[in-house]
Amino acid sequence: MSPKSSQRTVVVTAGPTREAIDPVRYLSNDSSGKMGFAIARAAAGAGHRVTLIAGPVALETPARVRRVDVLSARDMLVATREAFRSADALFMAAAVADWRPKRKRAEKWRKSRHESELATLELVRNPDILASLARRKGPRLVVGFALETGAGIARAMRKLKDKGADYIVLNGPEALTRDRASVTILDRFGASTVMQNRPKSQIARALVGLMKEAD
Amino acid sequence: MSPKSSQRTVVVTAGPTREAIDPVRYLSNDSSGKMGFAIARAAAGAGHRVTLIAGPVALETPARVRRVDVLSARDMLVATREAFRSADALFMAAAVADWRPKRKRAEKWRKSRHESELATLELVRNPDILASLARRKGPRLVVGFALETGAGIARAMRKLKDKGADYIVLNGPEALTRDRASVTILDRFGASTVMQNRPKSQIARALVGLMKEAD
Repeated sequence: MSPKSSQRTVVVTAGPTREAIDPVRYLSNDSSGKMGFAIARAAAGAGHRVTLIAGPVALETPARVRRVDVLSARDMLVATREAFRSADALFMAAAVADWRPKRKRAEKWRKSRHESELATLELVRNPDILASLARRKGPRLVVGFALETGAGIARAMRKLKDKGADYIVLNGPEALTRDRASVTILDRFGASTVMQNRPKSQIARALVGLMKEAD
Repeated sequence: MSPKSSQRTVVVTAGPTREAIDPVRYLSNDSSGKMGFAIARAAAGAGHRVTLIAGPVALETPARVRRVDVLSARDMLVATREAFRSADALFMAAAVADWRPKRKRAEKWRKSRHESELATLELVRNPDILASLARRKGPRLVVGFALETGAGIARAMRKLKDKGADYIVLNGPEALTRDRASVTILDRFGASTVMQNRPKSQIARALVGLMKEAD
């Protein structure tokens, strides 16, 4: 196979999403974006065309990567769906917020002097970007990520099947902000590859390598 | 007055706070920390001893400033109270979260397959750091900040009196992430100074100058 014919068009999502409560407050999570940025860097380094859909993170865009910045899960769905339309592979490393405030207040939500000490924030489910895009993926490669704090393998395996992805990368919350991670890569047939305490750059290269196996 | 006798011990708070929902999710706000860091830099540049209590921000510590990193409002209260004990002035530029989740879940809060599309997050009021510290400030200078999205002067004036601060700096949400801001500095007697679209470094020097007027 010539180098040119092995060049793929790859979409990577990275970082957290932010779900606005009012003009200044939001819900978010600890994702640093490092895993997704490492995948984008590894894919570009391997000669692929890469679009990186990034939530709010403090990271520099890797060389030869097209970056699209988004904030909310809904923005990320729109940008990712658009980019995946003409792509061969999708790596969903972003930590997409499962929930968002039911309504965004136009004015800053203030505490009045007579208000009680308790309040409730009403939430609605965000779109499931992975399931939504994997459903119509056809022969294209889709790799999801699962962040699990308890016994995670069974749950990640169910997620893989429910969502229709080709692989699920299972990791723990300690991986979110660090430069190294321990991950388990699960495929649809129940096979797993464990990478213990490896640099994210190394895990990223292994994940990009999944595109070859899909040939 | 000799330079030495005009040296003060100054505490500055900066940035947002993060209020944990579970091991990975949190509530926060858009504060970049730039205003507080500018005040710390200006105060250190004027020869004062500065402790900067910083929420999670991506900013470098100014030269000759002692920095204490915190996450939650409760952590910020503890660190600020401790630093203010031996200080002459407090600048509360942090955007402290008014609310936090009633309980932090030990495990990641997951969506089950049978769960409804709606959820509620129960919140409790955070401690009011400004009011709590201004109450026992004695002759020391305390400068608060008010972020107002509507007609804010009357509300900021009430905040100044309710909380017992010496000054309140009123600004809008557009000031949170930018390098410039438009602020109104209100004192307890109803006098106000307006600074329109100025670099935060210039506003910071004006605020540090309030310590001289307090002599």
